[in-house]
Amino acid sequence: MDLDSVLAAIDRDLDRSIERLFELLRIPSISTDPAYRGECRKAADWLARELAALGFAAEVRATQGHPMVVAHGGPNDGAPRVLFYGHYDVQPPDPLELWVTPPFEPRLIGTNGARRIVARGVADDKGQLMTFIEACRAFVAAEGKLPLPVTVLLEGEEETGSPSLPPFLAAHKAELSADVALVCDTDMWDANTPAVTTMLRGLVLEEVIVSGADRDLHSGLFGAAAINPIRVLARVLADIHDANGHIAIPGFYEGVGELDAEIAAQWRALRFDERRFLGDLGLKTPAGEKGRSVLEQIWARPTCDVNGIVGGYTGAGSKTVIPAKASAKFSFRLVGKQDPAAVRDAFRDFVRARLPADCKAEFLSHGASPALQLPLSSAYLAKTRAALAAEWGREPVLKGSGGSIPIVGSFKRDLGMDSLLVGFGLDDDRIHSPNEKYDLASFHKGARSWARILAALAGRS
Amino acid sequence: MDLDSVLAAIDRDLDRSIERLFELLRIPSISTDPAYRGECRKAADWLARELAALGFAAEVRATQGHPMVVAHGGPNDGAPRVLFYGHYDVQPPDPLELWVTPPFEPRLIGTNGARRIVARGVADDKGQLMTFIEACRAFVAAEGKLPLPVTVLLEGEEETGSPSLPPFLAAHKAELSADVALVCDTDMWDANTPAVTTMLRGLVLEEVIVSGADRDLHSGLFGAAAINPIRVLARVLADIHDANGHIAIPGFYEGVGELDAEIAAQWRALRFDERRFLGDLGLKTPAGEKGRSVLEQIWARPTCDVNGIVGGYTGAGSKTVIPAKASAKFSFRLVGKQDPAAVRDAFRDFVRARLPADCKAEFLSHGASPALQLPLSSAYLAKTRAALAAEWGREPVLKGSGGSIPIVGSFKRDLGMDSLLVGFGLDDDRIHSPNEKYDLASFHKGARSWARILAALAGRS
Repeated sequence: MDLDSVLAAIDRDLDRSIERLFELLRIPSISTDPAYRGECRKAADWLARELAALGFAAEVRATQGHPMVVAHGGPNDGAPRVLFYGHYDVQPPDPLELWVTPPFEPRLIGTNGARRIVARGVADDKGQLMTFIEACRAFVAAEGKLPLPVTVLLEGEEETGSPSLPPFLAAHKAELSADVALVCDTDMWDANTPAVTTMLRGLVLEEVIVSGADRDLHSGLFGAAAINPIRVLARVLADIHDANGHIAIPGFYEGVGELDAEIAAQWRALRFDERRFLGDLGLKTPAGEKGRSVLEQIWARPTCDVNGIVGGYTGAGSKTVIPAKASAKFSFRLVGKQDPAAVRDAFRDFVRARLPADCKAEFLSHGASPALQLPLSSAYLAKTRAALAAEWGREPVLKGSGGSIPIVGSFKRDLGMDSLLVGFGLDDDRIHSPNEKYDLASFHKGARSWARILAALAGRS
Repeated sequence: MDLDSVLAAIDRDLDRSIERLFELLRIPSISTDPAYRGECRKAADWLARELAALGFAAEVRATQGHPMVVAHGGPNDGAPRVLFYGHYDVQPPDPLELWVTPPFEPRLIGTNGARRIVARGVADDKGQLMTFIEACRAFVAAEGKLPLPVTVLLEGEEETGSPSLPPFLAAHKAELSADVALVCDTDMWDANTPAVTTMLRGLVLEEVIVSGADRDLHSGLFGAAAINPIRVLARVLADIHDANGHIAIPGFYEGVGELDAEIAAQWRALRFDERRFLGDLGLKTPAGEKGRSVLEQIWARPTCDVNGIVGGYTGAGSKTVIPAKASAKFSFRLVGKQDPAAVRDAFRDFVRARLPADCKAEFLSHGASPALQLPLSSAYLAKTRAALAAEWGREPVLKGSGGSIPIVGSFKRDLGMDSLLVGFGLDDDRIHSPNEKYDLASFHKGARSWARILAALAGRS
């Protein structure tokens, strides 16, 4: 059999594959907001129907949170079995007023070389997961079947730290175990150069609510005398980083190693353009740890970011109030052998040590996962690199990722399975931001890439 | 003529006077929120109709913001002319979920000795201004006319720093000038002891918006490398106060004097119960300048309060975002000869000095007014003290106020007029907070107090 007929099926079906992606993008499956629970279910149902139409035995399975889509397909003939993972949930689209077109009304814009699809979730992760499904569709169209046994697992809680995934994996260990996992939620090196992500940072999500007086107070009558929780929170925030961008939480750097020399050399050779990277954001100066390159800051160093803060009056005009409470959301990116539970505990102690008399702190955990590294010696990695080189005409870069994909840790820890992280996103996709986009080339050549990878893993090249 | 018949008219009319106050309280005249512009106009119209019904020549006059109510009444017979000032605007009622009854559906609750009216604005300032109008009504009912020439001036922008008042006073200087101003927007010393407020702090309202990248960013992909405006704002906030509660803004204390020895002695004699004052708020420890009593902290020392902060994701769950901007609202309370413009400029310089590379700050001014002190030698003050002592059976306390009433500064500066600050609010009225209340005794004996004060100023006692 000829792989060219599979690739030709992808090319021929491009317009209809875009239409299918648009259908999925129109579903506002925002996992963090309980108001969109029904929309998450709708996205899961839509995906299960698509997979069933390709011959998969596809099901939507309930969890404590949003449902999982699980689908099994392909021959059971001794070829390596793969587990494909993606997520159908998306980030909230706010601030809405900055979107040029509505976030859940996808558009194909731009001309020839620069055509792109604009919609919330198109790059993270709906467009990416559909590259794999379209590759499966092409095999079925050209050859009547998949080239190897495939299980598809699509979750709806990736943007909220995947709380239901570990128990789900534990409960379906035999069903979901495979020879290798394929994960499509990462970026290329640039628009012409593919990449495999071999280093993933961990993630700890914490929320702190500081409270003082038992009600909001008039600041003219009670200010100064009554403690202000916003000031307490600001003191915590200001103390977290020292003047060099180091994190001052005691014990935070425990388990953080220096970068592998080979990887460090490879990254230096990339001649990463820091000025352009920051310039694209309207910035000029790296704001992270002094003495570390930007690539290290975002791929290989641990961080503490404050993602949100709110307290007191935030409407138009002024209100002279001392609020009863103020809150902030934090995310920690972990590397090496940092222990998520230890980081969380150290942070909570750090906050408690800064609570003045009369103040209380309440903590909410929104998830925790360790960092992860893929062995460079993996045979599946070698086949994947060759398949990507054939499609793109360039060797793929082996890179780190600043974002966290907790599922990869669960696959390794709970199912003993390595993950191949292959994705077709780009730095300028504006994921989590207004006007998120996905290049048409990423979508089209992404599907072709998966066709080549599946063939290679099946031993056909 | 007998003052007793005037006081009897107040007593007799109490139930109907409560009904009238309820009508005013049902109008949600929230001045800071443009959505309530029509309601502010409605409150002004209602008041003008009430005053006209008492024989005042009453008008609603447009300004750049919310309208003024101006009414002239009484004989023109050489008795001192008084200008009564109050405000019909109220603070926003949020957080709504903490109100036991809806904020704009007034209720009379409690039994005999502890009856009180609950509604937004009842203590600040609708119930207070109605004590004066009810006193006028009683004179008209008992004697057919007011005992002296009275001009009533009611504004609708007190809660937003009174931006339209100075130009309005300047434009109507002759019409509004009087021998003395009467202002009803302050508290008693306690439920049994009246007070005249002779010291008022000034107020500077500033909002700061700090911006970094040109859009919200994924914190996993750009965190640390891209500057976080929340962190920048937190650094500013943390630097404003030192460990002793002193404000570290250079030049801030210029013009701040020590307390007059006589006043200091009077305040010490009050034996103010700091533990109870804080205990009523659910607190135990004074949070202001070390080495200063709580009374000094709230009446006689300058402060910087942060009244609100917001940035990034503040909804349910988590969102790993580095926001493009973050903002905070500040209020400064001024004393002595502190210059509002100098304080504002020093604050802005202080913020700018803490902006790292790539960050910008935008400043919004929401108002500025200096502190003010009433001469203790005023003959009007002596008459007012005697009138209050007659009604309450106790000498009134001469006190300071932590809250700001900018109009008093304008009266002094622009019209050369001192103000008698007499009010019947109490510490536990929860003004600016959910479940604001006004004691029925404050309302009833407040009206009687004004009747006695008007008679005294007219030379009748």
